[in-house]
Amino acid sequence: MGRKSDARQRILDAGATLFGQRAYSTIGVAEICAEADVPKGSFYYFFPSKQALALAVVDEHWVWQRGQWMGILTAPEPIVDRLRALFIATAEMQSAALKGTGAVAGCLFGNLALEVSAQDDPLRARLQEIFDEQIDIVEGAIREAVTAGEVSVASPRETARSIVAQIEGMILFAKLFNDPAQLDQLWQNSMKLLGLGDAAVAA
Amino acid sequence: MGRKSDARQRILDAGATLFGQRAYSTIGVAEICAEADVPKGSFYYFFPSKQALALAVVDEHWVWQRGQWMGILTAPEPIVDRLRALFIATAEMQSAALKGTGAVAGCLFGNLALEVSAQDDPLRARLQEIFDEQIDIVEGAIREAVTAGEVSVASPRETARSIVAQIEGMILFAKLFNDPAQLDQLWQNSMKLLGLGDAAVAA
Repeated sequence: MGRKSDARQRILDAGATLFGQRAYSTIGVAEICAEADVPKGSFYYFFPSKQALALAVVDEHWVWQRGQWMGILTAPEPIVDRLRALFIATAEMQSAALKGTGAVAGCLFGNLALEVSAQDDPLRARLQEIFDEQIDIVEGAIREAVTAGEVSVASPRETARSIVAQIEGMILFAKLFNDPAQLDQLWQNSMKLLGLGDAAVAA
Repeated sequence: MGRKSDARQRILDAGATLFGQRAYSTIGVAEICAEADVPKGSFYYFFPSKQALALAVVDEHWVWQRGQWMGILTAPEPIVDRLRALFIATAEMQSAALKGTGAVAGCLFGNLALEVSAQDDPLRARLQEIFDEQIDIVEGAIREAVTAGEVSVASPRETARSIVAQIEGMILFAKLFNDPAQLDQLWQNSMKLLGLGDAAVAA
């Protein structure tokens, strides 16, 4: 998501940066405009409200991440290798953030989810959809693996949900401890959730 | 954590309620005093700052939860049964919150962790300690199970960390979707993380 020169993109980037750093509800439009280096009128030209910006930030991030996940999880590789590639990419993103900013950014969706879940917020509904889509993508890969005889699981849906939950929990630890190495176990755990033992992991 | 009649406890209870509902950084001392029905002077008699209160709230919750976890995970039962009991207790807490307040409360530690992790905060250090202790407790039970020949895992520490991460990830979903049933898979997943297959789960 390179920083483009137009104001709308600068506002989106500023929102993504600030929502990743602090609680969503503590961030005001004035601060977003300062970070984006645009006048307030410019903000309201593009977005009717902070919430509208947050929805756009979340959508933009999901467009990008969905592309990444689909690219990795539909590759013509065994499911084991696809999941490993997904976890490596996830850990690399957190490592890159640590290198660039000094802090593990965590998951934008997870960060916002815990904050807005106590409220009746369109953001919450959107985040539910996104997590469901994440689970859909992983489920699709698992179903392919079942068809190919690579794995045997009782419920591809529940297994996919477990893998996404494991990613969120591990990213919470990576953020809390500011340590991307917390994610190193993801691959091995997911193999276990898929019913593949240490032998399959070592293979 | 029944509501006691003294002011200090009322302030602690009010903090626990409010920190579970909204972002920590949006909650002020005045609002906490209103919720606790105490004058501001009373707050500062007991707590030098909101941060001091948050640390006390977190400590009180952990004293209670550590007791619950230790009680369940050191019971003279097979590890499988202990973990199942822990997950049932966890799901019951979220169901009780849903029934009582209309909302799945989520995990106080996880909620705060994602918010304060971008800041240099004594709360963050305390939350790191608490998650480490949670992992210690689960690791202890797994080590006992290994000694008893119930399970065989490469690293009891990493397996324990994975189980706690799985709990956090699933609680995030339970909170986002306001649905404690999201936790139903915890037990089966943990069996898989322990290298026990569906047969062990069904036993």
